[in-house]
Amino acid sequence: MLSEHSNHPFDQAIRLAPGEPGSFAGETSPAYANFVGPFGGVTAATLLQAALVSPERRGEPVSFTVNFAAPIADGGFTITARAARTNRSTQHWVLEMRQGDAVVATATAVFALRRETWQALDVSPPEAPPAQSLPALAWFEALPVWIRNYRMHMARGEITLQDQDAAGDSVSTLWLRDDPPRPLDFPAITALSDAFFPRIFVRRQRFAPIGTVTMTVYFHADQAMLDHQGTEPLLATARASRFRDGYFDQVAELWGKDDELLATTHQLVYYRE
Amino acid sequence: MLSEHSNHPFDQAIRLAPGEPGSFAGETSPAYANFVGPFGGVTAATLLQAALVSPERRGEPVSFTVNFAAPIADGGFTITARAARTNRSTQHWVLEMRQGDAVVATATAVFALRRETWQALDVSPPEAPPAQSLPALAWFEALPVWIRNYRMHMARGEITLQDQDAAGDSVSTLWLRDDPPRPLDFPAITALSDAFFPRIFVRRQRFAPIGTVTMTVYFHADQAMLDHQGTEPLLATARASRFRDGYFDQVAELWGKDDELLATTHQLVYYRE
Repeated sequence: MLSEHSNHPFDQAIRLAPGEPGSFAGETSPAYANFVGPFGGVTAATLLQAALVSPERRGEPVSFTVNFAAPIADGGFTITARAARTNRSTQHWVLEMRQGDAVVATATAVFALRRETWQALDVSPPEAPPAQSLPALAWFEALPVWIRNYRMHMARGEITLQDQDAAGDSVSTLWLRDDPPRPLDFPAITALSDAFFPRIFVRRQRFAPIGTVTMTVYFHADQAMLDHQGTEPLLATARASRFRDGYFDQVAELWGKDDELLATTHQLVYYRE
Repeated sequence: MLSEHSNHPFDQAIRLAPGEPGSFAGETSPAYANFVGPFGGVTAATLLQAALVSPERRGEPVSFTVNFAAPIADGGFTITARAARTNRSTQHWVLEMRQGDAVVATATAVFALRRETWQALDVSPPEAPPAQSLPALAWFEALPVWIRNYRMHMARGEITLQDQDAAGDSVSTLWLRDDPPRPLDFPAITALSDAFFPRIFVRRQRFAPIGTVTMTVYFHADQAMLDHQGTEPLLATARASRFRDGYFDQVAELWGKDDELLATTHQLVYYRE
Protein backbone atom coordinates (compact mmCIF):
# COMPACT_ATOMS: atom_id res chain seq x y z
CA MET A 1 0.00 0.00 0.00
CA LEU A 2 1.22 3.51 -0.73
CA SER A 3 2.20 5.62 2.21
CA GLU A 4 -0.57 7.89 3.44
CA HIS A 5 1.78 10.74 2.68
CA SER A 6 1.80 10.10 -1.05
CA ASN A 7 1.12 13.17 -3.11
CA HIS A 8 -1.06 11.39 -5.63
CA PRO A 9 -4.44 13.17 -5.77
CA PHE A 10 -6.17 9.87 -4.93
CA ASP A 11 -4.21 9.51 -1.69
CA GLN A 12 -5.04 13.08 -0.81
CA ALA A 13 -8.72 12.43 -1.54
CA ILE A 14 -9.01 9.37 0.72
CA ARG A 15 -6.82 10.75 3.52
CA LEU A 16 -8.35 10.35 6.97
CA ALA A 17 -7.44 11.93 10.29
CA PRO A 18 -8.04 9.55 13.20
CA GLY A 19 -10.21 10.95 16.00
CA GLU A 20 -11.80 9.05 18.88
CA PRO A 21 -11.24 5.28 18.52
CA GLY A 22 -13.35 4.07 15.58
CA SER A 23 -13.82 7.58 14.23
CA PHE A 24 -12.10 9.43 11.39
CA ALA A 25 -12.40 12.83 9.76
CA GLY A 26 -11.97 13.50 6.07
CA GLU A 27 -12.73 16.06 3.44
CA THR A 28 -14.06 15.85 -0.10
CA SER A 29 -11.44 16.51 -2.77
CA PRO A 30 -12.11 19.11 -5.50
CA ALA A 31 -9.98 16.95 -7.83
CA TYR A 32 -12.64 14.20 -7.65
CA ALA A 33 -15.72 16.42 -7.91
CA ASN A 34 -18.73 14.93 -9.66
CA PHE A 35 -21.71 16.93 -10.98
CA VAL A 36 -23.04 16.98 -7.42
CA GLY A 37 -20.63 16.25 -4.58
CA PRO A 38 -17.68 13.87 -4.92
CA PHE A 39 -17.22 10.88 -7.26
CA GLY A 40 -18.87 7.90 -5.55
CA GLY A 41 -15.87 5.69 -6.21
CA VAL A 42 -13.73 7.90 -3.98
CA THR A 43 -16.43 7.96 -1.29
CA ALA A 44 -16.44 4.16 -1.41
CA ALA A 45 -12.64 4.01 -1.30
CA THR A 46 -12.55 6.38 1.67
CA LEU A 47 -14.96 4.18 3.63
CA LEU A 48 -12.87 1.10 2.87
CA GLN A 49 -9.75 3.06 3.83
CA ALA A 50 -11.26 3.71 7.29
CA ALA A 51 -11.35 -0.05 7.91
CA LEU A 52 -7.90 -0.54 6.34
CA VAL A 53 -6.21 1.99 8.61
CA SER A 54 -8.07 0.91 11.77
CA PRO A 55 -5.58 -0.54 14.26
CA GLU A 56 -7.75 -3.61 14.95
CA ARG A 57 -8.01 -4.51 11.26
CA ARG A 58 -7.01 -8.07 10.43
CA GLY A 59 -6.35 -9.42 6.96
CA GLU A 60 -7.34 -7.97 3.60
CA PRO A 61 -10.77 -7.13 2.19
CA VAL A 62 -12.61 -9.86 0.32
CA SER A 63 -15.90 -8.00 -0.06
CA PHE A 64 -17.18 -4.47 0.33
CA THR A 65 -20.64 -2.94 -0.04
CA VAL A 66 -21.38 0.77 0.05
CA ASN A 67 -24.82 2.41 0.03
CA PHE A 68 -25.00 6.02 -1.10
CA ALA A 69 -27.69 7.39 1.19
CA ALA A 70 -27.70 11.06 0.23
CA PRO A 71 -25.83 13.62 -1.85
CA ILE A 72 -22.53 14.49 -0.17
CA ALA A 73 -21.81 18.19 0.19
CA ASP A 74 -18.35 19.50 -0.61
CA GLY A 75 -16.41 19.79 2.64
CA GLY A 76 -15.80 17.76 5.75
CA PHE A 77 -17.24 14.43 6.85
CA THR A 78 -16.73 11.89 9.61
CA ILE A 79 -16.57 8.11 9.31
CA THR A 80 -17.29 5.62 12.06
CA ALA A 81 -15.71 2.20 11.58
CA ARG A 82 -16.58 -0.71 13.82
CA ALA A 83 -15.35 -4.30 13.71
CA ALA A 84 -18.72 -5.87 14.50
CA ARG A 85 -17.22 -9.34 14.64
CA THR A 86 -13.67 -10.70 14.56
CA ASN A 87 -13.24 -14.42 13.91
CA ARG A 88 -10.10 -16.49 13.53
CA SER A 89 -9.83 -15.81 9.80
CA THR A 90 -12.51 -13.20 9.00
CA GLN A 91 -13.52 -9.80 10.29
CA HIS A 92 -16.83 -7.99 9.65
CA TRP A 93 -16.88 -4.19 9.46
CA VAL A 94 -19.79 -1.77 9.69
CA LEU A 95 -19.06 1.75 8.50
CA GLU A 96 -20.99 4.98 8.30
CA MET A 97 -20.20 8.38 6.81
CA ARG A 98 -21.88 11.49 8.23
CA GLN A 99 -21.98 15.16 7.53
CA GLY A 100 -23.14 16.92 10.69
CA ASP A 101 -25.70 14.55 12.19
CA ALA A 102 -26.91 13.20 8.86
CA VAL A 103 -25.88 9.81 7.49
CA VAL A 104 -24.72 10.21 3.87
CA ALA A 105 -23.36 6.68 3.28
CA THR A 106 -23.34 3.28 4.95
CA ALA A 107 -21.03 0.37 4.21
CA THR A 108 -20.06 -3.12 5.28
CA ALA A 109 -16.85 -4.98 4.56
CA VAL A 110 -15.52 -8.47 5.10
CA PHE A 111 -11.80 -8.89 5.67
CA ALA A 112 -10.08 -12.26 5.67
CA LEU A 113 -6.80 -14.04 6.05
CA ARG A 114 -6.59 -16.08 2.87
CA ARG A 115 -5.11 -19.53 2.59
CA GLU A 116 -4.00 -21.30 -0.58
CA THR A 117 -6.63 -23.67 -1.99
CA TRP A 118 -7.64 -25.39 -5.19
CA GLN A 119 -8.47 -22.70 -7.71
CA ALA A 120 -10.23 -22.14 -11.02
CA LEU A 121 -11.33 -19.38 -13.31
CA ASP A 122 -14.78 -19.80 -14.89
CA VAL A 123 -14.93 -16.72 -17.08
CA SER A 124 -12.73 -15.28 -19.81
CA PRO A 125 -11.42 -11.76 -20.19
CA PRO A 126 -13.28 -9.61 -22.74
CA GLU A 127 -11.72 -9.16 -26.15
CA ALA A 128 -10.05 -5.81 -26.72
CA PRO A 129 -7.27 -4.40 -28.85
CA PRO A 130 -4.19 -3.20 -26.90
CA ALA A 131 -4.69 0.07 -25.03
CA GLN A 132 -2.00 1.78 -27.12
CA SER A 133 -3.98 1.12 -30.30
CA LEU A 134 -7.07 2.92 -28.95
CA PRO A 135 -7.39 6.66 -28.42
CA ALA A 136 -7.49 7.80 -24.80
CA LEU A 137 -10.76 9.43 -23.78
CA ALA A 138 -10.24 13.18 -23.84
CA TRP A 139 -11.73 15.04 -20.90
CA PHE A 140 -13.80 18.09 -21.85
CA GLU A 141 -15.79 20.53 -19.81
CA ALA A 142 -19.17 18.82 -20.09
CA LEU A 143 -17.68 15.86 -18.19
CA PRO A 144 -17.32 15.83 -14.41
CA VAL A 145 -13.89 16.74 -13.07
CA TRP A 146 -13.13 13.34 -11.49
CA ILE A 147 -12.74 11.72 -14.90
CA ARG A 148 -9.49 13.68 -15.35
CA ASN A 149 -7.97 11.37 -12.72
CA TYR A 150 -8.49 8.30 -14.87
CA ARG A 151 -7.11 7.22 -18.21
CA MET A 152 -9.66 5.34 -20.28
CA HIS A 153 -9.26 3.69 -23.69
CA MET A 154 -12.68 2.56 -24.88
CA ALA A 155 -12.73 -0.71 -26.80
CA ARG A 156 -16.52 -1.12 -26.84
CA GLY A 157 -19.62 0.75 -25.71
CA GLU A 158 -18.36 4.25 -26.18
CA ILE A 159 -20.83 7.06 -25.60
CA THR A 160 -21.33 8.80 -28.92
CA LEU A 161 -24.76 10.35 -28.20
CA GLN A 162 -25.74 9.22 -31.70
CA ASP A 163 -29.23 7.74 -31.92
CA GLN A 164 -28.12 5.07 -34.34
CA ASP A 165 -25.75 3.62 -31.72
CA ALA A 166 -28.56 3.13 -29.21
CA ALA A 167 -30.05 -0.08 -30.59
CA GLY A 168 -27.47 -2.46 -29.13
CA ASP A 169 -26.76 -3.62 -25.62
CA SER A 170 -25.28 -1.90 -22.61
CA VAL A 171 -21.84 -3.54 -22.70
CA SER A 172 -18.71 -1.44 -22.33
CA THR A 173 -15.13 -2.67 -22.39
CA LEU A 174 -12.24 -0.34 -21.68
CA TRP A 175 -8.69 -0.06 -20.47
CA LEU A 176 -8.71 1.86 -17.23
CA ARG A 177 -6.12 3.19 -14.77
CA ASP A 178 -5.42 6.07 -12.43
CA ASP A 179 -3.90 9.11 -14.11
CA PRO A 180 -1.20 9.94 -13.17
CA PRO A 181 -0.41 6.24 -12.77
CA ARG A 182 -0.57 4.93 -9.20
CA PRO A 183 0.27 1.43 -7.91
CA LEU A 184 -2.93 -0.56 -7.44
CA ASP A 185 -4.28 -1.18 -3.94
CA PHE A 186 -7.69 -1.97 -2.42
CA PRO A 187 -8.97 1.62 -2.20
CA ALA A 188 -7.92 2.27 -5.81
CA ILE A 189 -9.59 -0.84 -7.23
CA THR A 190 -12.73 0.05 -5.24
CA ALA A 191 -12.83 3.49 -6.86
CA LEU A 192 -12.06 1.98 -10.29
CA SER A 193 -15.09 -0.31 -9.79
CA ASP A 194 -17.28 2.79 -9.90
CA ALA A 195 -15.52 4.48 -12.83
CA PHE A 196 -17.72 3.05 -15.59
CA PHE A 197 -20.07 5.44 -17.31
CA PRO A 198 -23.68 4.72 -16.38
CA ARG A 199 -25.04 1.83 -18.43
CA ILE A 200 -28.08 3.86 -19.43
CA PHE A 201 -25.87 6.40 -21.24
CA VAL A 202 -24.42 3.54 -23.28
CA ARG A 203 -27.74 1.83 -23.87
CA ARG A 204 -29.68 4.93 -24.92
CA GLN A 205 -26.82 7.09 -26.19
CA ARG A 206 -28.16 10.02 -24.25
CA PHE A 207 -27.62 11.48 -20.82
CA ALA A 208 -30.15 11.01 -18.04
CA PRO A 209 -30.19 11.98 -14.38
CA ILE A 210 -28.63 9.02 -12.52
CA GLY A 211 -27.10 8.15 -9.17
CA THR A 212 -25.53 4.93 -7.90
CA VAL A 213 -27.53 3.71 -4.91
CA THR A 214 -25.39 0.76 -3.85
CA MET A 215 -22.21 -0.95 -5.03
CA THR A 216 -20.55 -4.21 -4.03
CA VAL A 217 -16.99 -5.27 -4.83
CA TYR A 218 -15.67 -8.81 -4.47
CA PHE A 219 -11.88 -8.82 -4.36
CA HIS A 220 -10.44 -11.93 -5.98
CA ALA A 221 -6.91 -10.53 -5.61
CA ASP A 222 -4.71 -10.10 -2.58
CA GLN A 223 -2.27 -7.22 -2.19
CA ALA A 224 0.56 -9.24 -3.77
CA MET A 225 -1.52 -9.60 -6.94
CA LEU A 226 -2.35 -5.89 -6.89
CA ASP A 227 1.38 -5.15 -6.48
CA HIS A 228 2.06 -7.36 -9.48
CA GLN A 229 -0.44 -5.30 -11.48
CA GLY A 230 1.33 -2.12 -10.41
CA THR A 231 0.38 0.85 -12.56
CA GLU A 232 -0.67 -1.14 -15.65
CA PRO A 233 -4.20 -0.45 -16.90
CA LEU A 234 -7.00 -2.82 -16.01
CA LEU A 235 -9.20 -4.34 -18.68
CA ALA A 236 -12.67 -3.49 -17.43
CA THR A 237 -16.02 -4.66 -18.75
CA ALA A 238 -19.57 -3.90 -17.64
CA ARG A 239 -23.14 -4.65 -18.67
CA ALA A 240 -26.63 -4.15 -17.29
CA SER A 241 -29.26 -6.84 -16.82
CA ARG A 242 -32.42 -4.81 -16.53
CA PHE A 243 -33.58 -1.20 -16.54
CA ARG A 244 -37.00 -0.80 -14.93
CA ASP A 245 -39.01 1.84 -13.09
CA GLY A 246 -36.12 3.98 -12.00
CA TYR A 247 -33.40 1.41 -11.27
CA PHE A 248 -30.90 -0.55 -13.34
CA ASP A 249 -28.11 -2.88 -12.29
CA GLN A 250 -24.52 -3.16 -13.49
CA VAL A 251 -22.43 -6.33 -13.51
CA ALA A 252 -18.71 -5.76 -14.09
CA GLU A 253 -15.31 -7.42 -14.09
CA LEU A 254 -11.87 -5.88 -13.60
CA TRP A 255 -9.06 -7.86 -15.22
CA GLY A 256 -5.35 -7.48 -14.63
CA LYS A 257 -2.41 -8.60 -16.73
CA ASP A 258 -1.82 -12.32 -17.31
CA ASP A 259 -5.62 -12.80 -17.49
CA GLU A 260 -5.98 -12.36 -13.74
CA LEU A 261 -9.55 -11.54 -12.68
CA LEU A 262 -8.82 -9.08 -9.86
CA ALA A 263 -12.36 -8.06 -8.88
CA THR A 264 -16.01 -8.50 -9.79
CA THR A 265 -18.40 -5.70 -8.95
CA HIS A 266 -22.12 -4.99 -9.03
CA GLN A 267 -24.16 -1.90 -8.53
CA LEU A 268 -27.72 -0.63 -8.60
CA VAL A 269 -28.28 2.78 -10.12
CA TYR A 270 -31.23 5.15 -9.88
CA TYR A 271 -32.30 6.85 -13.09
CA ARG A 272 -35.05 9.16 -14.30
CA GLU A 273 -36.86 9.44 -17.67
CA MET B 1 -47.66 -10.02 1.36
CA LEU B 2 -48.91 -13.00 3.31
CA SER B 3 -50.23 -12.36 6.76
CA GLU B 4 -47.73 -12.92 9.52
CA HIS B 5 -50.10 -15.54 10.80
CA SER B 6 -49.69 -17.79 7.81
CA ASN B 7 -48.95 -21.35 8.71
CA HIS B 8 -46.42 -21.85 5.94
CA PRO B 9 -43.12 -23.01 7.50
CA PHE B 10 -41.36 -20.06 5.86
CA ASP B 11 -43.63 -17.56 7.58
CA GLN B 12 -43.06 -19.31 10.86
CA ALA B 13 -39.30 -19.23 10.28
CA ILE B 14 -39.12 -15.48 9.61
CA ARG B 15 -41.65 -14.48 12.26
CA LEU B 16 -40.48 -11.63 14.48
CA ALA B 17 -41.82 -10.33 17.78
CA PRO B 18 -41.43 -6.56 18.09
CA GLY B 19 -39.62 -5.37 21.23
CA GLU B 20 -38.25 -1.90 21.95
CA PRO B 21 -38.61 0.40 18.92
CA GLY B 22 -36.14 -0.83 16.27
CA SER B 23 -35.69 -4.20 17.95
CA PHE B 24 -37.18 -7.61 17.20
CA ALA B 25 -36.86 -11.09 18.62
CA GLY B 26 -36.94 -14.26 16.56
CA GLU B 27 -36.01 -17.89 16.72
CA THR B 28 -34.31 -20.27 14.32
CA SER B 29 -36.65 -22.79 12.71
CA PRO B 30 -35.81 -26.52 12.82
CA ALA B 31 -37.58 -26.83 9.45
CA TYR B 32 -34.84 -24.71 7.85
CA ALA B 33 -31.85 -26.27 9.61
CA ASN B 34 -28.60 -26.39 7.65
CA PHE B 35 -25.61 -28.57 8.52
CA VAL B 36 -24.65 -25.95 11.11
CA GLY B 37 -27.31 -23.47 12.24
CA PRO B 38 -30.12 -22.27 9.99
CA PHE B 39 -30.20 -21.95 6.17
CA GLY B 40 -28.58 -18.58 5.34
CA GLY B 41 -31.41 -17.69 2.97
CA VAL B 42 -33.87 -17.69 5.85
CA THR B 43 -31.48 -15.64 8.00
CA ALA B 44 -31.27 -13.13 5.16
CA ALA B 45 -35.05 -13.12 4.72
CA THR B 46 -35.57 -12.58 8.45
CA LEU B 47 -33.28 -9.53 8.43
CA LEU B 48 -35.14 -8.09 5.45
CA GLN B 49 -38.41 -8.87 7.20
CA ALA B 50 -37.33 -6.72 10.17
CA ALA B 51 -37.13 -3.70 7.86
CA LEU B 52 -40.36 -4.66 6.08
CA VAL B 53 -42.41 -4.81 9.28
CA SER B 54 -40.85 -1.69 10.83
CA PRO B 55 -43.52 1.00 11.19
CA GLU B 56 -41.30 3.71 9.65
CA ARG B 57 -40.60 1.64 6.53
CA ARG B 58 -41.35 3.43 3.26
CA GLY B 59 -41.55 1.79 -0.15
CA GLU B 60 -40.30 -1.60 -1.26
CA PRO B 61 -36.79 -3.05 -1.22
CA VAL B 62 -34.62 -2.46 -4.29
CA SER B 63 -31.40 -3.85 -2.84
CA PHE B 64 -30.33 -5.93 0.13
CA THR B 65 -26.93 -7.09 1.37
CA VAL B 66 -26.36 -9.53 4.21
CA ASN B 67 -23.02 -10.50 5.75
CA PHE B 68 -22.90 -13.78 7.63
CA ALA B 69 -20.53 -12.92 10.45
CA ALA B 70 -20.58 -16.12 12.48
CA PRO B 71 -22.33 -19.49 12.75
CA ILE B 72 -25.83 -19.00 14.16
CA ALA B 73 -26.74 -21.31 17.02
CA ASP B 74 -30.16 -22.95 17.07
CA GLY B 75 -32.43 -20.87 19.27
CA GLY B 76 -33.30 -17.23 19.84
CA PHE B 77 -31.82 -14.09 18.31
CA THR B 78 -32.51 -10.37 18.27
CA ILE B 79 -32.46 -8.01 15.30
CA THR B 80 -31.92 -4.28 15.43
CA ALA B 81 -33.29 -2.36 12.45
CA ARG B 82 -32.52 1.31 11.93
CA ALA B 83 -33.58 3.61 9.12
CA ALA B 84 -30.24 5.42 8.87
CA ARG B 85 -31.60 7.83 6.27
CA THR B 86 -35.04 8.52 4.85
CA ASN B 87 -35.24 10.58 1.66
CA ARG B 88 -38.20 11.57 -0.45
CA SER B 89 -38.11 8.39 -2.50
CA THR B 90 -35.48 6.15 -0.86
CA GLN B 91 -34.78 4.80 2.59
CA HIS B 92 -31.51 3.25 3.83
CA TRP B 93 -31.60 0.54 6.48
CA VAL B 94 -28.86 -0.82 8.71
CA LEU B 95 -29.61 -4.14 10.40
CA GLU B 96 -27.83 -6.41 12.81
CA MET B 97 -28.60 -9.85 14.19
CA ARG B 98 -27.22 -10.86 17.58
CA GLN B 99 -27.23 -13.89 19.81
CA GLY B 100 -26.50 -12.72 23.35
CA ASP B 101 -24.01 -9.90 22.90
CA ALA B 102 -22.38 -11.34 19.80
CA VAL B 103 -23.10 -10.07 16.29
CA VAL B 104 -23.89 -13.02 14.01
CA ALA B 105 -25.02 -11.12 10.90
CA THR B 106 -25.06 -7.58 9.56
CA ALA B 107 -27.14 -6.23 6.69
CA THR B 108 -28.06 -3.12 4.77
CA ALA B 109 -31.08 -2.51 2.58
CA VAL B 110 -32.30 0.21 0.26
CA PHE B 111 -36.04 0.73 -0.05
CA ALA B 112 -37.59 2.96 -2.69
CA LEU B 113 -40.81 4.30 -4.08
CA ARG B 114 -40.59 3.37 -7.73
CA ARG B 115 -41.88 5.45 -10.59
CA GLU B 116 -42.55 4.31 -14.13
CA THR B 117 -39.69 5.04 -16.55
CA TRP B 118 -38.28 3.93 -19.87
CA GLN B 119 -37.30 0.28 -19.52
CA ALA B 120 -35.22 -2.44 -21.16
CA LEU B 121 -34.01 -5.95 -20.58
CA ASP B 122 -30.40 -6.64 -21.60
CA VAL B 123 -30.15 -10.33 -20.81
CA SER B 124 -32.12 -13.43 -21.86
CA PRO B 125 -33.54 -16.17 -19.68
CA PRO B 126 -31.53 -19.40 -19.65
CA GLU B 127 -32.74 -22.28 -21.78
CA ALA B 128 -34.48 -25.04 -19.90
CA PRO B 129 -37.09 -27.70 -20.60
CA PRO B 130 -40.41 -27.23 -18.75
CA ALA B 131 -40.25 -28.09 -15.03
CA GLN B 132 -42.79 -30.89 -15.49
CA SER B 133 -40.44 -32.68 -17.91
CA LEU B 134 -37.61 -32.78 -15.36
CA PRO B 135 -37.51 -34.93 -12.25
CA ALA B 136 -37.83 -33.08 -8.95
CA LEU B 137 -34.78 -33.30 -6.74
CA ALA B 138 -35.46 -35.91 -4.10
CA TRP B 139 -34.39 -34.99 -0.60
CA PHE B 140 -32.36 -37.66 1.19
CA GLU B 141 -30.73 -37.75 4.56
CA ALA B 142 -27.24 -36.63 3.50
CA LEU B 143 -28.80 -33.29 2.45
CA PRO B 144 -29.55 -30.53 4.95
CA VAL B 145 -33.12 -30.33 6.18
CA TRP B 146 -33.89 -26.89 4.69
CA ILE B 147 -33.86 -28.29 1.15
CA ARG B 148 -37.12 -30.09 1.95
CA ASN B 149 -38.82 -26.68 1.87
CA TYR B 150 -37.93 -26.14 -1.77
CA ARG B 151 -38.90 -27.88 -4.95
CA MET B 152 -36.07 -28.00 -7.47
CA HIS B 153 -36.02 -29.37 -11.01
CA MET B 154 -32.44 -29.31 -12.28
CA ALA B 155 -32.04 -28.46 -15.96
CA ARG B 156 -28.26 -28.05 -15.88
CA GLY B 157 -25.39 -28.35 -13.42
CA GLU B 158 -26.74 -31.15 -11.34
CA ILE B 159 -24.47 -32.53 -8.63
CA THR B 160 -23.72 -36.11 -9.54
CA LEU B 161 -20.47 -36.48 -7.56
CA GLN B 162 -19.07 -38.24 -10.64
CA ASP B 163 -15.51 -37.22 -11.52
CA GLN B 164 -16.24 -37.23 -15.22
CA ASP B 165 -18.79 -34.43 -14.75
CA ALA B 166 -16.24 -32.12 -13.13
CA ALA B 167 -14.51 -30.89 -16.27
CA GLY B 168 -17.11 -28.31 -17.26
CA ASP B 169 -18.08 -24.99 -15.80
CA SER B 170 -19.97 -24.03 -12.67
CA VAL B 171 -23.30 -23.13 -14.29
CA SER B 172 -26.55 -24.44 -12.83
CA THR B 173 -30.03 -23.81 -14.13
CA LEU B 174 -33.08 -25.01 -12.28
CA TRP B 175 -36.76 -24.51 -11.62
CA LEU B 176 -37.17 -23.44 -8.03
CA ARG B 177 -40.06 -22.68 -5.68
CA ASP B 178 -41.13 -22.97 -2.06
CA ASP B 179 -42.61 -26.34 -1.14
CA PRO B 180 -45.42 -26.35 -0.19
CA PRO B 181 -46.08 -23.55 -2.70
CA ARG B 182 -46.24 -20.05 -1.23
CA PRO B 183 -47.05 -16.77 -2.98
CA LEU B 184 -43.83 -14.92 -3.79
CA ASP B 185 -42.82 -11.88 -1.73
CA PHE B 186 -39.58 -10.07 -0.91
CA PRO B 187 -38.49 -12.31 1.98
CA ALA B 188 -39.18 -15.44 -0.09
CA ILE B 189 -37.23 -14.27 -3.14
CA THR B 190 -34.37 -13.29 -0.81
CA ALA B 191 -34.25 -16.81 0.60
CA LEU B 192 -34.58 -18.31 -2.89
CA SER B 193 -31.53 -16.24 -3.91
CA ASP B 194 -29.49 -18.34 -1.49
CA ALA B 195 -31.00 -21.72 -2.42
CA PHE B 196 -28.46 -22.65 -5.10
CA PHE B 197 -26.05 -25.43 -4.27
CA PRO B 198 -22.54 -24.07 -3.78
CA ARG B 199 -20.84 -23.53 -7.14
CA ILE B 200 -17.80 -25.50 -6.01
CA PHE B 201 -19.91 -28.66 -5.62
CA VAL B 202 -21.01 -28.27 -9.25
CA ARG B 203 -17.57 -27.37 -10.56
CA ARG B 204 -15.68 -30.16 -8.79
CA GLN B 205 -18.48 -32.68 -8.37
CA ARG B 206 -17.48 -33.21 -4.79
CA PHE B 207 -18.46 -31.74 -1.47
CA ALA B 208 -16.20 -29.28 0.34
CA PRO B 209 -16.61 -27.27 3.53
CA ILE B 210 -18.21 -23.96 2.48
CA GLY B 211 -20.05 -21.01 3.95
CA THR B 212 -21.61 -17.97 2.30
CA VAL B 213 -19.88 -14.86 3.64
CA THR B 214 -21.98 -12.16 1.99
CA MET B 215 -24.94 -12.01 -0.40
CA THR B 216 -26.53 -9.12 -2.28
CA VAL B 217 -29.94 -9.15 -3.97
CA TYR B 218 -31.12 -6.53 -6.44
CA PHE B 219 -34.91 -6.62 -6.77
CA HIS B 220 -36.02 -5.74 -10.29
CA ALA B 221 -39.62 -6.59 -9.40
CA ASP B 222 -42.14 -4.78 -7.26
CA GLN B 223 -44.75 -6.57 -5.15
CA ALA B 224 -47.29 -6.47 -8.00
CA MET B 225 -44.87 -8.45 -10.19
CA LEU B 226 -44.24 -10.89 -7.35
CA ASP B 227 -48.01 -11.27 -6.95
CA HIS B 228 -48.26 -11.97 -10.65
CA GLN B 229 -45.67 -14.73 -10.24
CA GLY B 230 -47.69 -16.20 -7.38
CA THR B 231 -46.66 -19.76 -6.57
CA GLU B 232 -45.20 -20.60 -9.99
CA PRO B 233 -41.58 -21.83 -9.98
CA LEU B 234 -38.78 -19.42 -10.80
CA LEU B 235 -36.25 -20.25 -13.48
CA ALA B 236 -32.97 -19.75 -11.65
CA THR B 237 -29.46 -19.75 -13.05
CA ALA B 238 -26.08 -19.30 -11.37
CA ARG B 239 -22.40 -19.38 -12.22
CA ALA B 240 -19.09 -18.54 -10.56
CA SER B 241 -16.42 -16.23 -11.91
CA ARG B 242 -13.38 -17.25 -9.92
CA PHE B 243 -12.41 -19.69 -7.16
CA ARG B 244 -9.20 -18.64 -5.42
CA ASP B 245 -7.51 -19.01 -2.04
CA GLY B 246 -10.60 -19.80 -0.06
CA TYR B 247 -13.27 -17.63 -1.73
CA PHE B 248 -15.44 -17.93 -4.81
CA ASP B 249 -18.20 -15.70 -6.10
CA GLN B 250 -21.63 -16.55 -7.49
CA VAL B 251 -23.56 -14.49 -10.04
CA ALA B 252 -27.22 -15.47 -10.41
CA GLU B 253 -30.53 -14.51 -11.98
CA LEU B 254 -34.08 -15.36 -10.89
CA TRP B 255 -36.59 -15.31 -13.73
CA GLY B 256 -40.36 -15.30 -13.44
CA LYS B 257 -43.00 -16.22 -15.98
CA ASP B 258 -43.36 -14.13 -19.15
CA ASP B 259 -39.55 -13.75 -19.24
CA GLU B 260 -39.60 -11.30 -16.33
CA LEU B 261 -36.21 -10.93 -14.63
CA LEU B 262 -37.34 -10.59 -11.01
CA ALA B 263 -33.98 -10.40 -9.23
CA THR B 264 -30.24 -10.59 -9.78
CA THR B 265 -28.08 -11.78 -6.92
CA HIS B 266 -24.42 -12.17 -6.06
CA GLN B 267 -22.59 -13.82 -3.25
CA LEU B 268 -19.11 -14.57 -2.00
CA VAL B 269 -18.53 -17.98 -0.48
CA TYR B 270 -15.75 -19.28 1.73
CA TYR B 271 -14.42 -22.74 0.90
CA ARG B 272 -11.67 -25.08 2.04
CA GLU B 273 -9.51 -27.63 0.14
